[in-house]
Amino acid sequence: MTVDTSSAPVVTDTPQQRMALAKEASRATAQLTSDDKRSALHAIADALVASAPAIIAANQEDLERGRDNGLTTGLLDRLRLDDARIAGLASAVCEVAALADPVGQVVGGHRMPNGVALEQVRVPFGVVGVIYEARPNVTVDIAALALRSGNAVVLRGGSAARSSNTVLVEVMRSALDSAGITAEAIQTVDDFGRDGAHAMMRGRGLIDVLIPRGSASLIETVVTESTVPVIETGAGVVHIVLDESAPDDWARDIVVNAKVQRPSVCNAVETVLVLRPAAERLVPNVVEALVAQGVTVHGDAGVAELVPGVVPATEEDWGTEYLSLDVSMKLVDTLDEALAHIRRYSTGHTESIITTDSRNAERFLAEVDSAVVMANASTRFTDGGEFGFGAEVGISTQKLHTRGPMGLSELTSTKWLARGSGQTRA
Amino acid sequence: MTVDTSSAPVVTDTPQQRMALAKEASRATAQLTSDDKRSALHAIADALVASAPAIIAANQEDLERGRDNGLTTGLLDRLRLDDARIAGLASAVCEVAALADPVGQVVGGHRMPNGVALEQVRVPFGVVGVIYEARPNVTVDIAALALRSGNAVVLRGGSAARSSNTVLVEVMRSALDSAGITAEAIQTVDDFGRDGAHAMMRGRGLIDVLIPRGSASLIETVVTESTVPVIETGAGVVHIVLDESAPDDWARDIVVNAKVQRPSVCNAVETVLVLRPAAERLVPNVVEALVAQGVTVHGDAGVAELVPGVVPATEEDWGTEYLSLDVSMKLVDTLDEALAHIRRYSTGHTESIITTDSRNAERFLAEVDSAVVMANASTRFTDGGEFGFGAEVGISTQKLHTRGPMGLSELTSTKWLARGSGQTRA
Repeated sequence: MTVDTSSAPVVTDTPQQRMALAKEASRATAQLTSDDKRSALHAIADALVASAPAIIAANQEDLERGRDNGLTTGLLDRLRLDDARIAGLASAVCEVAALADPVGQVVGGHRMPNGVALEQVRVPFGVVGVIYEARPNVTVDIAALALRSGNAVVLRGGSAARSSNTVLVEVMRSALDSAGITAEAIQTVDDFGRDGAHAMMRGRGLIDVLIPRGSASLIETVVTESTVPVIETGAGVVHIVLDESAPDDWARDIVVNAKVQRPSVCNAVETVLVLRPAAERLVPNVVEALVAQGVTVHGDAGVAELVPGVVPATEEDWGTEYLSLDVSMKLVDTLDEALAHIRRYSTGHTESIITTDSRNAERFLAEVDSAVVMANASTRFTDGGEFGFGAEVGISTQKLHTRGPMGLSELTSTKWLARGSGQTRA
Repeated sequence: MTVDTSSAPVVTDTPQQRMALAKEASRATAQLTSDDKRSALHAIADALVASAPAIIAANQEDLERGRDNGLTTGLLDRLRLDDARIAGLASAVCEVAALADPVGQVVGGHRMPNGVALEQVRVPFGVVGVIYEARPNVTVDIAALALRSGNAVVLRGGSAARSSNTVLVEVMRSALDSAGITAEAIQTVDDFGRDGAHAMMRGRGLIDVLIPRGSASLIETVVTESTVPVIETGAGVVHIVLDESAPDDWARDIVVNAKVQRPSVCNAVETVLVLRPAAERLVPNVVEALVAQGVTVHGDAGVAELVPGVVPATEEDWGTEYLSLDVSMKLVDTLDEALAHIRRYSTGHTESIITTDSRNAERFLAEVDSAVVMANASTRFTDGGEFGFGAEVGISTQKLHTRGPMGLSELTSTKWLARGSGQTRA
């Protein structure tokens, strides 16, 4: 793959050419100093604020199209950009700029017996591809995170935000240019529609890692069709187990917090499993507290016996990520039964047990095969910010490369450097 | 996926059922102590030696079929197992048993401001799938490495070694059983032919990571068709650059060592790039030393001018992994030209520069995007044993999860444990 960037403007009318430009640009971004990258991000933040009128005008087009297409009020609100939100975007970029640069960090190494010095250092992936459906702020967030970690980025956003995304990418590219960094480090393939996403999934040699962010079906498509390595940021069918020894207040407060504090996100609880010996003590109180917050409880027969008002749970409920003020609840006879239920229905995101029995807590922590396993804490803590990463690329539910909340260093690979003085192998 | 292992023998007549048994077994292997796993490996080593006659008898079948199918003497030799080689296999298993157990290692963590204790610990992947074409020793090596790191394993070996592999798997499974560990932790799908490999590539939820080991075309197939996360152990089109300042002896000794010491492996050099100002001084000596060792040099026009006897290199040579006593050689005007050649033809495995100019060495180390980048050392050092890992799972040429030689800890994932006392998110 050879791309001539030194001569007259290249006709970039295929997704492959855009990706090749990103690949070429990634050679330069990989060598930038931390200060260079910080300056570039500040230039982007400034440009976003300065370009607010153009961004808002483009966003109006998306909003109008959205209304014509019958988007819900909630979705329209998520799509909307105004001065305050643009200022928020710019400030998020500055926060990313303030994060420590993972590139160049030495993560291992030693001197071989023959004197060769081995060093394992963090390096950027190269080109990070992101396919997403979410709000236009993701366009800026992910570009900032990719650049901070020395990567070029190829973006494919949702069609609902296409006009906004087009302007946001233009603003960021010209800010890079003004900061003396090649604008080609930020590419979009939005204008190629499905072909753009497909090209990214088949972009071996041009895209180093592909991160899908969005619905379960989007993620499934990318995982199934991509020949490029993928980091799966999966859905969360998140469980809380109320053990026999669960204190009343912890059980109630944690379940309510995990469901109600922000029901639309992947770390919100979807299923509560209650050990039968504690059901009479816990279920009525927990359900009452949930209902008081507007939650619909989908209960099995055992739950319905204790709280006659609940909606009967069906088999489908156990595998459902509601992302709404709904929760399923089920009685189990033993911790074994709870663990078996979780094995069957969990998406491997986050599970928590509420218990004061340390043996049960430790067994749960050891045996549950999820990215984050908790005892006596709200599942809402599974979050890059809460984990102290300062920013979040997503939450990985796969086991390869990274698992759980991803920070900046998860956007890097490593390479081994070997410095010798003529050594050969015996 | 529910599999009943407690009742009468399950009919395991599909690859999916074998994989499900491995998945179920992986719950148990994940919880084994380091001592348990060490004992199991010693039981396997003992059983291999005790079963040598049966293994050799099965191996004879493979050898006879191989002869009938016209395998070369070299391939037949790689396939052959005798008492000494079986003893070597057993001793390799004992070496793996002696390695430190990565499982349970705490690799990160801190206390959140609200008091929740976060801990990131190494856990087994679960089920490691390996598709390979190599010698029957791989069957034992990879099973031992997987078990030492708490994983179950599903094997798909080459058909040439099928009889040997069948007996090796049986011996290992009954050794596990005698050590009180479920035999289902080691599965083979060899008897399903291509369907076995295909099922593994589509085994989402049953196989946690898939490692292809073998030819470039095998790896390409697995990477393209697999919906399971893959660790690519790629081919090596390995380069050595002889800079203007390369000392005569280092240039000669390192190139000869990197080509001749073991030409059939991925870290052997395939292309030598010589900076033109040093060509007259270096090329005749290096070529003479190579030819003295039986190497055929495929040179470009510049090389041919200096050493008239060389075979003319074609475009195809630059992308060829010879894995034989052949090497391609080319003159370049500048280090930039050498770097561009490497970008175009390297498989990202290992490259080395021979130079005493520290600026050129550091530029090479910084800019070459390969798993291992060297200055003044033989590329043959890219090896798990040489890197001090004690064993090698393979050499990753991808950037996700692990890059370069893989040790035991590369067969693990991590999970986050959170221990709280009723905390909720504000």
